[in-house]
Amino acid sequence: MENRSSRHPHDIPGMIVNRDFEGIQQWLLHTDTLDIAAELCRLKPEKRAIAFRLLTKDRALGVFEAFDPVHQQELLTALREQNIRELLEGMEPDDRARLLDEMPATVAKRLLDGLSPKERKLTSILLGYPENSTGRIMSPEFVDLRASMKIEEAMAKIRMRGKDAETIYSLPVTDDQLHLVGVVSLRDMVLADPNQTVSNIMCTQVYYAQADEDQEGPARLIQEADLIALPITDREKRLLGILTVDDAMEVLETEDTEDILRGGGLEPLGRPYLSASLLRLARTRVMWLIILIFAAALTVNILKIFEAALEAAITLSLFIPLLIDTGGNIGSQSATLIIRAMAVGEVRFTDFIRVVLREVRVGAMLGLMLGGVAYLPTMILFGKSIAQVLSLAMFSISIVAAFAGSVLPMLAKRFGVDPAITSAPIITTLVDSSGLVIYFLIAKSILKI
Amino acid sequence: MENRSSRHPHDIPGMIVNRDFEGIQQWLLHTDTLDIAAELCRLKPEKRAIAFRLLTKDRALGVFEAFDPVHQQELLTALREQNIRELLEGMEPDDRARLLDEMPATVAKRLLDGLSPKERKLTSILLGYPENSTGRIMSPEFVDLRASMKIEEAMAKIRMRGKDAETIYSLPVTDDQLHLVGVVSLRDMVLADPNQTVSNIMCTQVYYAQADEDQEGPARLIQEADLIALPITDREKRLLGILTVDDAMEVLETEDTEDILRGGGLEPLGRPYLSASLLRLARTRVMWLIILIFAAALTVNILKIFEAALEAAITLSLFIPLLIDTGGNIGSQSATLIIRAMAVGEVRFTDFIRVVLREVRVGAMLGLMLGGVAYLPTMILFGKSIAQVLSLAMFSISIVAAFAGSVLPMLAKRFGVDPAITSAPIITTLVDSSGLVIYFLIAKSILKI
Repeated sequence: MENRSSRHPHDIPGMIVNRDFEGIQQWLLHTDTLDIAAELCRLKPEKRAIAFRLLTKDRALGVFEAFDPVHQQELLTALREQNIRELLEGMEPDDRARLLDEMPATVAKRLLDGLSPKERKLTSILLGYPENSTGRIMSPEFVDLRASMKIEEAMAKIRMRGKDAETIYSLPVTDDQLHLVGVVSLRDMVLADPNQTVSNIMCTQVYYAQADEDQEGPARLIQEADLIALPITDREKRLLGILTVDDAMEVLETEDTEDILRGGGLEPLGRPYLSASLLRLARTRVMWLIILIFAAALTVNILKIFEAALEAAITLSLFIPLLIDTGGNIGSQSATLIIRAMAVGEVRFTDFIRVVLREVRVGAMLGLMLGGVAYLPTMILFGKSIAQVLSLAMFSISIVAAFAGSVLPMLAKRFGVDPAITSAPIITTLVDSSGLVIYFLIAKSILKI
Repeated sequence: MENRSSRHPHDIPGMIVNRDFEGIQQWLLHTDTLDIAAELCRLKPEKRAIAFRLLTKDRALGVFEAFDPVHQQELLTALREQNIRELLEGMEPDDRARLLDEMPATVAKRLLDGLSPKERKLTSILLGYPENSTGRIMSPEFVDLRASMKIEEAMAKIRMRGKDAETIYSLPVTDDQLHLVGVVSLRDMVLADPNQTVSNIMCTQVYYAQADEDQEGPARLIQEADLIALPITDREKRLLGILTVDDAMEVLETEDTEDILRGGGLEPLGRPYLSASLLRLARTRVMWLIILIFAAALTVNILKIFEAALEAAITLSLFIPLLIDTGGNIGSQSATLIIRAMAVGEVRFTDFIRVVLREVRVGAMLGLMLGGVAYLPTMILFGKSIAQVLSLAMFSISIVAAFAGSVLPMLAKRFGVDPAITSAPIITTLVDSSGLVIYFLIAKSILKI
């Protein structure tokens, strides 16, 4: 048994180069599955395959399952047909569906054909659902009970069929047509009097989701309701599978990563950072940068319009970065706050007016403070009228930024666009242009230029 | 049974104002616990208490548990002593500890004193661990088994003691001194031959964590290893409690929220958006803005140094927003990517050189592309030399931005600071200043001013 915090130093790449297989085997023996997976992922694909082949059959499957689909795929291309078949056969159907998704269609078909008829059928069912749907990640291997069963009978069925099921902790109860009528937990079964029936202890007010729903909703439901698993049905409420908490956690982590990356102005990589090629890294970023550069070109045009004012008072140009930074920061603060609040379900579109009013008032408060802070030093260094222009511009820009930062994400959500794409970079660029217009209009009227 | 997607329109605030208690009761009856909790959270505190009192005793506890600690506390102040005691007594010890944390110390003590001796003791144990430690959120109510027990004996112990335990799906196995020696799952117990002993089926290579560790590590371990629960021990590996997957999910959601908000330049609110006062909203933001405004003041000074160059070629000022936006965007892209990769464990500090080299090369690629895109239109509108200045500045700034965006988060992590605070806003402001210096140095040398 190993506490994960006590790691020993080791140099796997060096041991592979030196063909010190005994050293590697020793290390594999004394390291837990997750750490082995993490370490192997950091190796180049050829070295990874060499180390992987030294694992015992049982551990190999565990390490393989701990890889993400990208590394699984890379490894498979380096292994022999027989090993591949064994690994695939041992995986859960939903994990297997995710892996096959990553592969070229012809390879996926060949691998699928190599499976036993039972496993092939289970995976084919999942692959029939659209990408990102709940059906794709549910487990079709469940143990369902009948309400009329005695607890003893039900336990016998669980013992017989439970080995293949992904979970037996949450047991759906169905009628003759496989309609979901309730759920009973293994906990209640174990604690109940064995002479009772399932109907005595099952819960009939249960949460469930439909297989064609997007994954995020059911995953968040599992989190909010503290569930171990959620029954998944078709539109007629016939049971199709079960979504477990570990898969829900993975969905939520992926969603959060997506929101975080979009908030920073890039598209999700779809693979671990260190395994992404430089070209892929550049590609996930360049699209946004090009869009933003076109948006920023607007600022050049706006400044060109006010070129005469700039020439009359060159001092005005000194404050351009300060002002657009402030606007950008307040705008991204509002956007970030609202996007997260919507993602975790605290704010809905029906709160539109309430939210925008709050943000505008907060923007005004912040603008007052910042304008106040900036006034005195600017007056001392540049004189009273410049200080007035700057403070007034800061105040106005703060309000506009908070307004844009709250309105845009909510509108995006309303029109079915991921609100995260409206965060920091987009808001910043939009606020820049309007901020410059406000700044020069104020300057022209106060400085009379 | 209710699918959550089928919600009916309703106007709870209106029904409360009109004292339409029957209408509210009808709605409570036909709505699931989570939706009731979400709806009540959106009401003002007095109205929330009125609606809450209409719930039956059982459902009241469920709704109360679905609230976050802030709303729990607000509600308690509006309820009578007897109701408060019942609600607190029914909560899990770890949820109760979290709630009492939110309260003024004197109120917390009075509430704690009102509990039954057993529940009081359980909560006191948890409150003894430091904030954010794993001990604070573990459950001290577990069923531990001995390796020598027959499966039948073990099942009998689970039946006797399982009612109070937070989970019985993952059962720690201990020796006479309560040292953790293994874990057995209820699933394996149920599927095993009842004549075997626990030692036959238990797993001895188990993950565990220490009560004084920070919560995030153990929570992420539960996610990565797909666990239902993780045993929590003291430094001598004596069992103290068990951390369940639902609490782990909550920890990870809170951590992600923190990272997302810090990435947008604000401090976590510590409560749902709509329940935060305007003053609190402004307070979580103003500190960052003040820091950033001082950093941005640097740009004013830099521009002042180059004022002569600006006067000689006023056209140069037109590109300031475009350049600093580009630098800021590339810098926050790098920072966001690296911060997330570190948060989910894909990148460690030992990868420093590898990561920085990757980012600098990606920055150079992006700079080449953006400089290339900008060259032609700038040449047509402003002439060849300005176009040269702009493209060269874009290229250089992209490299500097990618460098700063990767170095700073990794250094922050190294020195024990949350890397998320180095993201977008800070990087943007830092890159602005260095970008302006680069821009004007290039301009001076090409335009000979």
